[in-house]
Amino acid sequence: MAQKPSLPKGTRDFGPEQMFKRNYILNTIKKVFQKYGFLPLETPAMENLSVLTGKYGDEGDQLLYRVLNSGDFLGKTNAEDYQAGSKAMSSKITEKGLKYDLTVPFARHVVMNQHQIAFPFKRYQIQPVWRADRPQKGRYREFYQCDADVIGTQSLICEAELMCMVHEVFDHFGFKDFKVSLSSRKVLEGIAEVCGLSNQFTAFCTILDKLDKIGEEKVSNELINLGLAEDKCRELFDILNNSIDPLASVKEYLKPSPIGRQGVEEIETTFDHLKTLGLEKHQIVFDPALARGLSYYTGVIYEVKPTSIKMGTITAGGRYDDLTGIFGLKGMSGVGISFGVDRIYDTLEELGLYPQTNAHSSQVLVTNFDSDSETKALALTASLRAANIPAEIYPDSAKLKKQMTYANNKGIPFVLMVGSQEIEKNMYVLKDMNTGTQKELSPEQLIDELK
Amino acid sequence: MAQKPSLPKGTRDFGPEQMFKRNYILNTIKKVFQKYGFLPLETPAMENLSVLTGKYGDEGDQLLYRVLNSGDFLGKTNAEDYQAGSKAMSSKITEKGLKYDLTVPFARHVVMNQHQIAFPFKRYQIQPVWRADRPQKGRYREFYQCDADVIGTQSLICEAELMCMVHEVFDHFGFKDFKVSLSSRKVLEGIAEVCGLSNQFTAFCTILDKLDKIGEEKVSNELINLGLAEDKCRELFDILNNSIDPLASVKEYLKPSPIGRQGVEEIETTFDHLKTLGLEKHQIVFDPALARGLSYYTGVIYEVKPTSIKMGTITAGGRYDDLTGIFGLKGMSGVGISFGVDRIYDTLEELGLYPQTNAHSSQVLVTNFDSDSETKALALTASLRAANIPAEIYPDSAKLKKQMTYANNKGIPFVLMVGSQEIEKNMYVLKDMNTGTQKELSPEQLIDELK
Repeated sequence: MAQKPSLPKGTRDFGPEQMFKRNYILNTIKKVFQKYGFLPLETPAMENLSVLTGKYGDEGDQLLYRVLNSGDFLGKTNAEDYQAGSKAMSSKITEKGLKYDLTVPFARHVVMNQHQIAFPFKRYQIQPVWRADRPQKGRYREFYQCDADVIGTQSLICEAELMCMVHEVFDHFGFKDFKVSLSSRKVLEGIAEVCGLSNQFTAFCTILDKLDKIGEEKVSNELINLGLAEDKCRELFDILNNSIDPLASVKEYLKPSPIGRQGVEEIETTFDHLKTLGLEKHQIVFDPALARGLSYYTGVIYEVKPTSIKMGTITAGGRYDDLTGIFGLKGMSGVGISFGVDRIYDTLEELGLYPQTNAHSSQVLVTNFDSDSETKALALTASLRAANIPAEIYPDSAKLKKQMTYANNKGIPFVLMVGSQEIEKNMYVLKDMNTGTQKELSPEQLIDELK
Repeated sequence: MAQKPSLPKGTRDFGPEQMFKRNYILNTIKKVFQKYGFLPLETPAMENLSVLTGKYGDEGDQLLYRVLNSGDFLGKTNAEDYQAGSKAMSSKITEKGLKYDLTVPFARHVVMNQHQIAFPFKRYQIQPVWRADRPQKGRYREFYQCDADVIGTQSLICEAELMCMVHEVFDHFGFKDFKVSLSSRKVLEGIAEVCGLSNQFTAFCTILDKLDKIGEEKVSNELINLGLAEDKCRELFDILNNSIDPLASVKEYLKPSPIGRQGVEEIETTFDHLKTLGLEKHQIVFDPALARGLSYYTGVIYEVKPTSIKMGTITAGGRYDDLTGIFGLKGMSGVGISFGVDRIYDTLEELGLYPQTNAHSSQVLVTNFDSDSETKALALTASLRAANIPAEIYPDSAKLKKQMTYANNKGIPFVLMVGSQEIEKNMYVLKDMNTGTQKELSPEQLIDELK
């Protein structure tokens, strides 16, 4: 009869230990978001498929989780629909899907509430999203995104502030070994233009994006195959490899390209703002080969990677013009940042950066030896709580060893012994579970000790 | 081209204002949960249908949201399956569903992690659940549940502590006009036994549960139709109407019923524990007609309703033996409480109990008049944040009126004027948006003023 229960592939439970670490991360980020004037938003897990489809490319559409219509979902179909196959059929039997990211629902919310919102609208959103992707290490089908976006202004102050927020969040964690890379889609477009590859811009970006993984030689070969002359390719890598002042060399290189010049100018302004905000140039690196998510972004882009461990991108973002155009609201430029919660979790774990604290459990376990002592133990528990000390009583009469093991497993730092002798003297033994030391205390002293 | 976006029926966005009120509620409840030794758990939105189906009755099964299998979901079906209709088909094309409550996923988690968990396991869980119900006022298809449960002990201390937590939570809100009703399924079973209606227990409970809505006369008629003798029915209502000492009169009435006597005994013990914990009898009312959710609970049950406004049940719970038996782990008794977040939200709204605070927005908006003053304004914003004062700069140069409107709409309590005259003197005008008063301050005074 009884079934062995399991979790869907690519999903996870978060038990107490993981919850406290995740909350540590999310609460830290939330505080920084709020300090910079961002306000919270939450949207439903389910969105109408008309909102979701066509926003993430063909591949994204296939990764959407679709929710079966309720009741007699086949009622509006016929045998021909069935014969037409899964794709045709799914549009007849599903109307809703699970959200794929937080950006499209944000755009949907802005359009629906455009007359109530005070623009520029700075919102943050921390919620799970779902993708029917092949699960693998570090990639889940249900995972949290943690985004902050500003919509309704083109000011590059926003870009600079978002990068300050990255530094402030990681400072809180005591995490120092990371690199923030910055570029602009416009710089990439300029480079493609100078290379004569404007018509193959997407392919050009895809190849360039592999530079870290496959190296200069292979990337060169692929670019030459794409149609880039060998001397032009050498020239390009001379620019990309200039580590002394990459911005100056790219600026020179992009002189013939109007869009490229604009990209460089925006990056210079962003650096000016960053300086005013107290971030020096060495803390943010201009990387003209940065080519992430370019189907999406239109302006400045940035990403953050740890330098002392192998982890990939842990935070990224950029500017996208016309975020809400698809829903009929034109001219709304947005810029955002997304913190990768799962990778940040693993990074802090690997570097041992979680604070050592018992703050998440009760501070004291009150023992329960028999029905005679139980009432006194329960009354003491209540008096501790009345003094705002998180306390719990072991709910059943049990041997001391069992109760100590319980306290140990739960990480409760103190155990209070309430036996017949203690009750008679009205003095109770408080055991420190970390040091093993014991103190005999009156109920009043107990509260002073634990407060 | 552009579509007018909409939300699925029965779902909601939570904007900044609602988020802060909801977080006020949830954070208050969380703190109380933790103070009583409960630890957090989160489970995925999606569960395998094998975990969900058969747990909520036929009606519940129909209200489950099913997630369409990815890819070629028709691949494993044939035309006969299609002809067999929606119900047969859905089992072929869906394997996962959205969770319907937090209790079944909790039981699933406990069974899967039984060797790591320290029992008794006290967990809380605050997450959305989904039901394909007909939406109506106060009933949503996606809504939060906020549960605390103890599993692995039969101690009635748990029941008493859960009711203390209710009082502590509502105390924090300054909410006083509520009534906690308490009974036990065993008392109901005893009453049915004494009435000779044990064979029709479910029907008996369903009728009794309507007492508040349809009144004594109609309930009497229905019970008599069910087979209760008229004199037995009068006797029953004499007992139910005894408001002086209902527990004593029910105790006398249930003397012939072993299960009834056990129920009364458990309620007496719970009241003893409540007294030890500082709650008096008048704060918790024994109500033998309480008949909620009896298909589920097996022991003590309780519910909380506001008394000064019409709102229905805002919090409820009870004990269920053998919570995990369905997944193969026998003998695990559990007891829980569920706070109804949406109704509590409406209750605090109706009674005007939300704290008046600007704590959720930036404390100060720094103006931005032109590109000359922008750099100084940005530097001042950074120095305020360095002093941990939540601050934001208006990202574009704009007229003062526009910036004041923005601050007003966002509820930002102060606006800092940074114009050319202010910069020259290095003295800045800080305007209090609530009182309209202004002060001229140096950068250092500014921080002291706003800290």
